[in-house]
Amino acid sequence: MSESTASVDRIYEVFDLLGPLYRRIHRTVERDTAALGLSAGTRAVLVMLRQRGPMPVPRLAEAQALSRQFTQRVVNEALARGLVASVANPAHRRSRLIALTESGTILVDRLLEREHGQLAAAAAELDGADFDGCVRVLSRLLRLVEAAEPGPGPV
Amino acid sequence: MSESTASVDRIYEVFDLLGPLYRRIHRTVERDTAALGLSAGTRAVLVMLRQRGPMPVPRLAEAQALSRQFTQRVVNEALARGLVASVANPAHRRSRLIALTESGTILVDRLLEREHGQLAAAAAELDGADFDGCVRVLSRLLRLVEAAEPGPGPV
Repeated sequence: MSESTASVDRIYEVFDLLGPLYRRIHRTVERDTAALGLSAGTRAVLVMLRQRGPMPVPRLAEAQALSRQFTQRVVNEALARGLVASVANPAHRRSRLIALTESGTILVDRLLEREHGQLAAAAAELDGADFDGCVRVLSRLLRLVEAAEPGPGPV
Repeated sequence: MSESTASVDRIYEVFDLLGPLYRRIHRTVERDTAALGLSAGTRAVLVMLRQRGPMPVPRLAEAQALSRQFTQRVVNEALARGLVASVANPAHRRSRLIALTESGTILVDRLLEREHGQLAAAAAELDGADFDGCVRVLSRLLRLVEAAEPGPGPV
Protein backbone atom coordinates (compact mmCIF):
# COMPACT_ATOMS: atom_id res chain seq x y z
CA MET A 1 0.00 0.00 0.00
CA SER A 2 1.51 3.38 -1.00
CA GLU A 3 1.98 6.21 1.51
CA SER A 4 -0.80 8.25 -0.14
CA THR A 5 -3.23 5.33 0.17
CA ALA A 6 -2.50 5.09 3.89
CA SER A 7 -3.21 8.79 4.35
CA VAL A 8 -6.51 8.63 2.48
CA ASP A 9 -7.43 5.82 4.86
CA ARG A 10 -6.77 8.24 7.70
CA ILE A 11 -9.26 10.69 6.16
CA TYR A 12 -11.88 7.92 6.13
CA GLU A 13 -11.04 7.21 9.75
CA VAL A 14 -11.91 10.84 10.52
CA PHE A 15 -15.06 10.76 8.33
CA ASP A 16 -16.22 7.59 10.10
CA LEU A 17 -16.09 9.42 13.44
CA LEU A 18 -17.53 12.65 12.07
CA GLY A 19 -21.00 11.40 11.05
CA PRO A 20 -21.89 9.58 14.30
CA LEU A 21 -20.33 12.39 16.38
CA TYR A 22 -22.25 15.13 14.53
CA ARG A 23 -25.56 13.27 14.74
CA ARG A 24 -25.15 12.48 18.43
CA ILE A 25 -24.14 16.06 19.29
CA HIS A 26 -27.09 17.31 17.26
CA ARG A 27 -29.49 15.07 19.19
CA THR A 28 -27.98 15.98 22.57
CA VAL A 29 -28.13 19.70 21.75
CA GLU A 30 -31.69 19.30 20.47
CA ARG A 31 -32.80 17.63 23.68
CA ASP A 32 -31.05 20.18 25.91
CA THR A 33 -32.32 23.20 23.98
CA ALA A 34 -35.87 21.78 23.70
CA ALA A 35 -36.01 22.05 27.51
CA LEU A 36 -35.56 25.82 26.98
CA GLY A 37 -38.05 25.89 24.08
CA LEU A 38 -35.30 26.33 21.47
CA SER A 39 -34.43 24.38 18.31
CA ALA A 40 -30.86 23.26 17.59
CA GLY A 41 -30.79 25.73 14.66
CA THR A 42 -31.70 28.64 16.91
CA ARG A 43 -29.04 27.60 19.38
CA ALA A 44 -26.39 27.54 16.63
CA VAL A 45 -27.34 31.06 15.52
CA LEU A 46 -27.38 32.45 19.07
CA VAL A 47 -23.99 30.92 19.90
CA MET A 48 -22.46 32.25 16.71
CA LEU A 49 -23.75 35.78 17.41
CA ARG A 50 -22.36 35.54 20.95
CA GLN A 51 -18.93 34.47 19.67
CA ARG A 52 -18.58 36.77 16.67
CA GLY A 53 -20.96 39.68 17.28
CA PRO A 54 -23.77 41.02 15.05
CA MET A 55 -23.78 39.89 11.41
CA PRO A 56 -26.16 39.80 8.43
CA VAL A 57 -28.24 36.66 7.72
CA PRO A 58 -26.25 35.63 4.61
CA ARG A 59 -22.99 35.60 6.60
CA LEU A 60 -24.60 33.58 9.41
CA ALA A 61 -25.77 31.04 6.81
CA GLU A 62 -22.38 30.87 5.11
CA ALA A 63 -20.47 30.45 8.39
CA GLN A 64 -22.70 27.52 9.38
CA ALA A 65 -22.96 26.04 5.87
CA LEU A 66 -26.75 26.34 6.09
CA SER A 67 -29.07 27.66 3.39
CA ARG A 68 -30.23 31.28 3.62
CA GLN A 69 -33.86 30.16 3.73
CA PHE A 70 -33.26 27.88 6.72
CA THR A 71 -31.17 30.51 8.49
CA GLN A 72 -33.82 33.16 7.84
CA ARG A 73 -36.51 30.91 9.34
CA VAL A 74 -34.40 30.36 12.44
CA VAL A 75 -33.67 34.09 12.73
CA ASN A 76 -37.39 34.91 12.37
CA GLU A 77 -38.13 32.49 15.21
CA ALA A 78 -35.50 34.18 17.39
CA LEU A 79 -36.82 37.65 16.42
CA ALA A 80 -40.35 36.61 17.39
CA ARG A 81 -39.08 35.47 20.79
CA GLY A 82 -37.12 38.67 21.35
CA LEU A 83 -33.80 36.83 21.53
CA VAL A 84 -32.30 38.81 18.63
CA ALA A 85 -33.04 42.16 17.00
CA SER A 86 -32.51 43.45 13.47
CA VAL A 87 -30.29 46.53 13.68
CA ALA A 88 -28.83 49.00 11.16
CA ASN A 89 -25.63 47.94 9.41
CA PRO A 90 -23.15 50.84 9.58
CA ALA A 91 -21.27 49.41 6.58
CA HIS A 92 -24.24 49.01 4.20
CA ARG A 93 -27.29 51.23 4.44
CA ARG A 94 -29.60 48.66 2.84
CA SER A 95 -28.58 45.57 4.77
CA ARG A 96 -29.41 44.77 8.38
CA LEU A 97 -27.41 43.04 11.08
CA ILE A 98 -28.83 40.42 13.43
CA ALA A 99 -27.74 41.13 17.01
CA LEU A 100 -28.41 39.40 20.34
CA THR A 101 -30.80 41.20 22.67
CA GLU A 102 -30.15 41.21 26.39
CA SER A 103 -32.51 38.30 26.98
CA GLY A 104 -30.85 36.39 24.09
CA THR A 105 -27.46 36.99 25.67
CA ILE A 106 -28.66 35.78 29.06
CA LEU A 107 -30.18 32.64 27.52
CA VAL A 108 -27.14 31.70 25.44
CA ASP A 109 -24.80 32.31 28.38
CA ARG A 110 -26.91 30.00 30.52
CA LEU A 111 -26.76 27.31 27.81
CA LEU A 112 -23.00 27.65 27.35
CA GLU A 113 -22.35 27.58 31.07
CA ARG A 114 -24.24 24.31 31.43
CA GLU A 115 -22.47 22.74 28.45
CA HIS A 116 -19.14 23.97 29.78
CA GLY A 117 -19.54 21.85 32.90
CA GLN A 118 -20.30 18.75 30.82
CA LEU A 119 -17.26 19.28 28.57
CA ALA A 120 -14.64 20.23 31.16
CA ALA A 121 -13.88 16.62 32.18
CA ALA A 122 -13.34 15.54 28.56
CA ALA A 123 -11.17 18.58 27.85
CA ALA A 124 -8.97 17.83 30.85
CA GLU A 125 -8.09 14.39 29.42
CA LEU A 126 -6.83 15.71 26.11
CA ASP A 127 -3.72 17.76 25.40
CA GLY A 128 -3.28 20.89 23.34
CA ALA A 129 -1.17 19.17 20.67
CA ASP A 130 -4.04 16.76 19.94
CA PHE A 131 -6.36 19.72 19.46
CA ASP A 132 -3.80 21.44 17.22
CA GLY A 133 -3.66 18.34 15.00
CA CYS A 134 -7.43 17.96 15.03
CA VAL A 135 -8.06 21.56 14.04
CA ARG A 136 -5.45 21.34 11.26
CA VAL A 137 -7.04 18.18 9.84
CA LEU A 138 -10.65 19.42 10.07
CA SER A 139 -9.77 22.87 8.65
CA ARG A 140 -7.97 21.29 5.69
CA LEU A 141 -10.92 18.97 5.01
CA LEU A 142 -13.33 21.90 5.27
CA ARG A 143 -11.33 23.88 2.68
CA LEU A 144 -11.33 20.78 0.47
CA VAL A 145 -15.11 20.38 0.51
CA GLU A 146 -15.65 24.14 0.20
CA ALA A 147 -13.58 24.05 -2.99
CA ALA A 148 -15.64 21.09 -4.26
CA GLU A 149 -18.91 22.95 -3.63
CA PRO A 150 -18.66 26.60 -4.71
CA GLY A 151 -22.30 27.73 -4.47
CA PRO A 152 -24.67 27.70 -1.46
CA GLY A 153 -26.51 24.38 -1.21
CA PRO A 154 -30.21 23.56 -0.73
CA VAL A 155 -29.96 23.31 3.10
CA MET B 1 -8.57 32.03 32.42
CA SER B 2 -7.92 28.62 34.02
CA GLU B 3 -6.31 25.76 32.07
CA SER B 4 -9.59 23.83 32.00
CA THR B 5 -11.44 26.82 30.52
CA ALA B 6 -8.87 27.08 27.72
CA SER B 7 -9.35 23.41 26.88
CA VAL B 8 -13.13 23.69 26.75
CA ASP B 9 -12.59 26.51 24.28
CA ARG B 10 -10.61 24.03 22.18
CA ILE B 11 -13.61 21.68 22.18
CA TYR B 12 -15.78 24.53 20.84
CA GLU B 13 -13.14 25.18 18.21
CA VAL B 14 -13.59 21.56 17.07
CA PHE B 15 -17.42 21.77 17.29
CA ASP B 16 -17.39 24.94 15.21
CA LEU B 17 -15.59 23.08 12.42
CA LEU B 18 -17.63 19.91 12.82
CA GLY B 19 -21.07 21.28 11.86
CA PRO B 20 -20.08 23.08 8.65
CA LEU B 21 -17.75 20.21 7.67
CA TYR B 22 -20.41 17.56 8.22
CA ARG B 23 -23.08 19.51 6.32
CA ARG B 24 -20.77 20.26 3.40
CA ILE B 25 -19.57 16.64 3.17
CA HIS B 26 -23.18 15.50 3.35
CA ARG B 27 -24.15 17.79 0.45
CA THR B 28 -21.10 16.82 -1.63
CA VAL B 29 -21.78 13.12 -1.05
CA GLU B 30 -25.47 13.63 -1.81
CA ARG B 31 -24.69 15.31 -5.12
CA ASP B 32 -22.10 12.71 -6.13
CA THR B 33 -24.27 9.75 -5.17
CA ALA B 34 -27.39 11.26 -6.78
CA ALA B 35 -25.53 10.97 -10.09
CA LEU B 36 -25.54 7.20 -9.44
CA GLY B 37 -29.18 7.23 -8.28
CA LEU B 38 -28.21 6.73 -4.63
CA SER B 39 -29.08 8.65 -1.46
CA ALA B 40 -26.39 9.69 1.03
CA GLY B 41 -27.93 7.24 3.54
CA THR B 42 -27.59 4.33 1.11
CA ARG B 43 -24.01 5.28 0.42
CA ALA B 44 -23.19 5.28 4.15
CA VAL B 45 -24.68 1.80 4.55
CA LEU B 46 -22.89 0.38 1.50
CA VAL B 47 -19.53 1.82 2.59
CA MET B 48 -19.93 0.45 6.09
CA LEU B 49 -20.77 -3.04 4.78
CA ARG B 50 -17.73 -2.87 2.49
CA GLN B 51 -15.44 -1.90 5.38
CA ARG B 52 -16.77 -4.18 8.10
CA GLY B 53 -18.55 -6.99 6.31
CA PRO B 54 -22.17 -8.26 6.72
CA MET B 55 -24.04 -7.09 9.82
CA PRO B 56 -27.63 -6.94 11.12
CA VAL B 57 -29.69 -3.73 10.69
CA PRO B 58 -29.58 -2.73 14.39
CA ARG B 59 -25.78 -2.82 14.40
CA LEU B 60 -25.63 -0.77 11.18
CA ALA B 61 -27.92 1.81 12.81
CA GLU B 62 -25.93 1.90 16.03
CA ALA B 63 -22.57 2.24 14.25
CA GLN B 64 -23.86 5.22 12.26
CA ALA B 65 -25.89 6.74 15.13
CA LEU B 66 -29.00 6.56 12.94
CA SER B 67 -32.44 5.33 14.01
CA ARG B 68 -33.38 1.74 13.20
CA GLN B 69 -36.39 2.96 11.21
CA PHE B 70 -34.26 5.20 8.99
CA THR B 71 -31.62 2.51 8.56
CA GLN B 72 -34.30 -0.08 7.70
CA ARG B 73 -35.73 2.25 5.02
CA VAL B 74 -32.30 2.72 3.49
CA VAL B 75 -31.62 -1.03 3.60
CA ASN B 76 -35.00 -1.73 1.95
CA GLU B 77 -34.08 0.69 -0.84
CA ALA B 78 -30.73 -1.07 -1.33
CA LEU B 79 -32.46 -4.50 -1.24
CA ALA B 80 -34.94 -3.36 -3.91
CA ARG B 81 -32.06 -2.29 -6.12
CA GLY B 82 -30.18 -5.54 -5.61
CA LEU B 83 -27.20 -3.80 -3.99
CA VAL B 84 -27.50 -5.81 -0.77
CA ALA B 85 -29.07 -9.12 0.20
CA SER B 86 -30.51 -10.41 3.47
CA VAL B 87 -28.59 -13.57 4.43
CA ALA B 88 -28.73 -16.06 7.31
CA ASN B 89 -26.89 -15.09 10.49
CA PRO B 90 -24.77 -18.07 11.58
CA ALA B 91 -24.69 -16.69 15.16
CA HIS B 92 -28.46 -16.19 15.64
CA ARG B 93 -30.99 -18.32 13.82
CA ARG B 94 -33.72 -15.65 14.01
CA SER B 95 -31.76 -12.61 12.93
CA ARG B 96 -30.55 -11.80 9.41
CA LEU B 97 -27.39 -10.14 8.18
CA ILE B 98 -27.30 -7.50 5.48
CA ALA B 99 -24.51 -8.27 2.97
CA LEU B 100 -23.30 -6.53 -0.19
CA THR B 101 -24.17 -8.29 -3.46
CA GLU B 102 -21.66 -8.36 -6.28
CA SER B 103 -23.29 -5.37 -7.99
CA GLY B 104 -23.34 -3.49 -4.65
CA THR B 105 -19.63 -4.20 -4.22
CA ILE B 106 -18.83 -2.96 -7.73
CA LEU B 107 -20.86 0.22 -7.17
CA VAL B 108 -19.33 1.09 -3.80
CA ASP B 109 -15.81 0.38 -5.09
CA ARG B 110 -16.43 2.75 -8.00
CA LEU B 111 -17.64 5.44 -5.58
CA LEU B 112 -14.70 5.00 -3.22
CA GLU B 113 -12.19 5.01 -6.06
CA ARG B 114 -13.52 8.34 -7.31
CA GLU B 115 -13.52 9.87 -3.84
CA HIS B 116 -10.03 8.53 -3.24
CA GLY B 117 -8.67 10.62 -6.09
CA GLN B 118 -10.32 13.76 -4.68
CA LEU B 119 -8.92 13.15 -1.18
CA ALA B 120 -5.36 12.10 -2.03
CA ALA B 121 -4.08 15.68 -2.45
CA ALA B 122 -5.48 16.78 0.92
CA ALA B 123 -4.09 13.67 2.62
CA ALA B 124 -0.62 14.32 1.23
CA GLU B 125 -0.52 17.75 2.94
CA LEU B 126 -1.23 16.41 6.41
CA ASP B 127 0.98 14.28 8.62
CA GLY B 128 0.19 11.16 10.58
CA ALA B 129 0.62 12.82 13.98
CA ASP B 130 -2.12 15.33 13.13
CA PHE B 131 -4.45 12.45 12.30
CA ASP B 132 -3.50 10.66 15.53
CA GLY B 133 -4.45 13.78 17.51
CA CYS B 134 -7.63 14.27 15.53
CA VAL B 135 -8.80 10.70 16.00
CA ARG B 136 -8.02 10.86 19.75
CA VAL B 137 -10.03 14.08 20.15
CA LEU B 138 -13.02 12.95 18.06
CA SER B 139 -13.12 9.49 19.69
CA ARG B 140 -13.10 11.04 23.17
CA LEU B 141 -15.89 13.45 22.22
CA LEU B 142 -17.89 10.60 20.71
CA ARG B 143 -17.61 8.60 23.95
CA LEU B 144 -18.67 11.70 25.87
CA VAL B 145 -21.86 12.22 23.85
CA GLU B 146 -22.60 8.48 23.80
CA ALA B 147 -22.52 8.54 27.60
CA ALA B 148 -24.84 11.57 27.63
CA GLU B 149 -27.36 9.82 25.36
CA PRO B 150 -27.84 6.18 26.40
CA GLY B 151 -30.83 5.14 24.25
CA PRO B 152 -31.25 5.19 20.45
CA GLY B 153 -32.63 8.54 19.27
CA PRO B 154 -35.49 9.44 16.91
CA VAL B 155 -33.24 9.73 13.81
